[in-house]
Amino acid sequence: MTVDERYLRDWSGLTRGVPQTVHQPASTDEVAALVRQARREGKHITVQGGLTGLAGGAVPADGDVVINMGRMNRIEYVDDVEGIMQVQAGATLQQVQEAAAAAGWFFPVDFAARGSCQIGGNAATNAGGTQVLRYGTLRDSVLGIEAVLADGEIVTSLTRLVKNSSGLDLRFLFIGSEGTLGIITRLTLRLQPPPGASATALAQVPDIASLSALLRHLRVTLGPQLTAYEFMSAEFLQQASELTGVASPLGPGSAWSVLIQASGGADAHANLEAALTRAYDDGLVTDCAVAASLADADKFWRLRESIPELMSTLKPTVNFDCGLPMAQMPDFVEQVQRALQQRYPQARHLFMGHLGDNNIHILTGPHPESEWFNVEEIVYSALRGRQGTISAEHGIGFLKKPFLGYTRSAGELQLLQRIKRALDPDNTLNPGRIFD
Amino acid sequence: MTVDERYLRDWSGLTRGVPQTVHQPASTDEVAALVRQARREGKHITVQGGLTGLAGGAVPADGDVVINMGRMNRIEYVDDVEGIMQVQAGATLQQVQEAAAAAGWFFPVDFAARGSCQIGGNAATNAGGTQVLRYGTLRDSVLGIEAVLADGEIVTSLTRLVKNSSGLDLRFLFIGSEGTLGIITRLTLRLQPPPGASATALAQVPDIASLSALLRHLRVTLGPQLTAYEFMSAEFLQQASELTGVASPLGPGSAWSVLIQASGGADAHANLEAALTRAYDDGLVTDCAVAASLADADKFWRLRESIPELMSTLKPTVNFDCGLPMAQMPDFVEQVQRALQQRYPQARHLFMGHLGDNNIHILTGPHPESEWFNVEEIVYSALRGRQGTISAEHGIGFLKKPFLGYTRSAGELQLLQRIKRALDPDNTLNPGRIFD
Repeated sequence: MTVDERYLRDWSGLTRGVPQTVHQPASTDEVAALVRQARREGKHITVQGGLTGLAGGAVPADGDVVINMGRMNRIEYVDDVEGIMQVQAGATLQQVQEAAAAAGWFFPVDFAARGSCQIGGNAATNAGGTQVLRYGTLRDSVLGIEAVLADGEIVTSLTRLVKNSSGLDLRFLFIGSEGTLGIITRLTLRLQPPPGASATALAQVPDIASLSALLRHLRVTLGPQLTAYEFMSAEFLQQASELTGVASPLGPGSAWSVLIQASGGADAHANLEAALTRAYDDGLVTDCAVAASLADADKFWRLRESIPELMSTLKPTVNFDCGLPMAQMPDFVEQVQRALQQRYPQARHLFMGHLGDNNIHILTGPHPESEWFNVEEIVYSALRGRQGTISAEHGIGFLKKPFLGYTRSAGELQLLQRIKRALDPDNTLNPGRIFD
Repeated sequence: MTVDERYLRDWSGLTRGVPQTVHQPASTDEVAALVRQARREGKHITVQGGLTGLAGGAVPADGDVVINMGRMNRIEYVDDVEGIMQVQAGATLQQVQEAAAAAGWFFPVDFAARGSCQIGGNAATNAGGTQVLRYGTLRDSVLGIEAVLADGEIVTSLTRLVKNSSGLDLRFLFIGSEGTLGIITRLTLRLQPPPGASATALAQVPDIASLSALLRHLRVTLGPQLTAYEFMSAEFLQQASELTGVASPLGPGSAWSVLIQASGGADAHANLEAALTRAYDDGLVTDCAVAASLADADKFWRLRESIPELMSTLKPTVNFDCGLPMAQMPDFVEQVQRALQQRYPQARHLFMGHLGDNNIHILTGPHPESEWFNVEEIVYSALRGRQGTISAEHGIGFLKKPFLGYTRSAGELQLLQRIKRALDPDNTLNPGRIFD
């Protein structure tokens, strides 16, 4: 049997081999039957969603049985009074967003891969995106889960309740465990009221330490109206501006800028303007522009969202989605910047991220593939001892596995493995992801 | 050794026996040593927080080793820039709230037992309270956990990151599992900006089905400003009014009323008033009073919070904290009301709850202890097949254990037991809670 090329890799580009078969089951029962058969035959299973992952988690090895969820893509119901939806795991994020909007609600998880990525894969990796500050990660939008375990048992926990205190919450075994403990087949999702009009601003801070002070000021002043707080290094902003042709409205002078969004309520624009004026008076902000029109706001976002173009200009790049406490950010950035600059003076090293989510992205390149591990070692070793994480939102998969011990304790790793052994003693489901 | 009476029961009143010893360890290492010793000696451990539970989960049996967390009550740090706190598990909820407020932040979980209950116990039972609509349950305020496992191993996962996608999130093994998988010793908590001024209203709806339609209207109109939506049956409101001496501002006429709170932003009061005027025009509300002063607002809340007095007037009572989808609520209430009325015409049956949390409380009494099981059977059997839960916030403990299978599937129960066996093969920690 020939296997279609597209099932061999995800967006990370990693390839591992050619699977024995690729199945596209149409129901939970079919998934369960495939799992039982694979287990009987001693095969390894690789679970696939939309194949948009960046950590190689959905990439099959030689001889694997691939279970691709693409055919289980139905929206099963939308409760438009309560704001709840039940879907099959293979529905795309965009399908979910559109079905929510059609019922007068809003699904708050969003990122660029929305048209291809699947909601089941989003849950398995606990995807984040640009609205986490206000709505949390995918975990916070999942009310219930149905999953197939490694022995083919179906666990149906499709609760649709906001509150439930009746023993261990089984959702969390499957959210973020990257398909190693079960295959998510269906989900109940929590929808949000539409956020309403938003206001956008771009601000410059005097130094990196002011980023967290400004965020504190905005959180306390704007409360839940604050929906995005995306910081960018001066070099990132300059590169983005050159690439997109969008001029930054800010003068030169500071190493750090931040894109700020406030949403909801007729007063979001006025509140954002007042909060930034106050911040300027207090010296937390050195320059600032509030978008006067939707077109202006789109331009500001265009700068922040130029990452795919930056990646292709600087390719081959190495990309990071580290997490760490805000208080650690200045020192971490300085250490990494210095180390990368020293070792790779010819490359560019760009920093940006979601400060309110403790998440910093680093984009560095070009680097030949032979240097990737060394680049990773520089960045991940700088995370040690800082209470951080090597992955805030992309997951571990295969690619970050060697570094997991840098930010998780030995006790944690032992417990992860104990749970895995209890639920999948034959190592049938997604073996080799997260840990060996 | 004589054991102090106060360690023998919680607020449920259940007693089971006299423990061998009661320990109050001062550190995580001491907890771990006690667990190792108990396991070596084949003893059962009962973990105790503030003993305010309503399901008997902290009540020891004859010969148990009690680990009471009351001495581990330190606030370890407050990060007032980022809004994060690290505490020992025995700190009271009130200590946590006060330490947050002192740093200019807000800890959003709140209920009447705040001065006695402990944050570790709150986490072990995933406590709810009156602010869940806006801030979620305790789970949503916990960023990291340290716990001692049944073999005495310490698992430190005191992450303080909003976002982390590096394998299974271990917090969720301990939150809501009622001490059966580990003893929570320390936590990192997420704080919120202070909510600001609030507006309160009491409204009458034409019928029970309108409760969810009104909630939808308010969620979409007020967005995150909507912070409480507490419904009450006419009989509850009347009894509460008689007991407290607070007259309801609403005329007679409807079977259902709802207490509504909007918070945050200078326009909360105006927005709430406008939203209710619109609801009145649309027939979703038949009468309505917005509190004109803080004293008025306090009176409205006094009615809702008269439950302890109602319980003592009607004692002995049987109390429920069921959860179910909003669409099921009218039929469930009618079925339960009819059945209780028919079988216990001399008792009172009061209904109230947090609709936005899918949570309905039922308070019925007086009932002699010999009838308690029959009362429970009437209520819990009415939950079957409705995608509900027998406990939305109080936990299962011992008292609700016989009914857990009414709302959790066989697959779920098997998986719960499998996790328990993997982490506590000798059944050392809190045996007999949740399931046998």
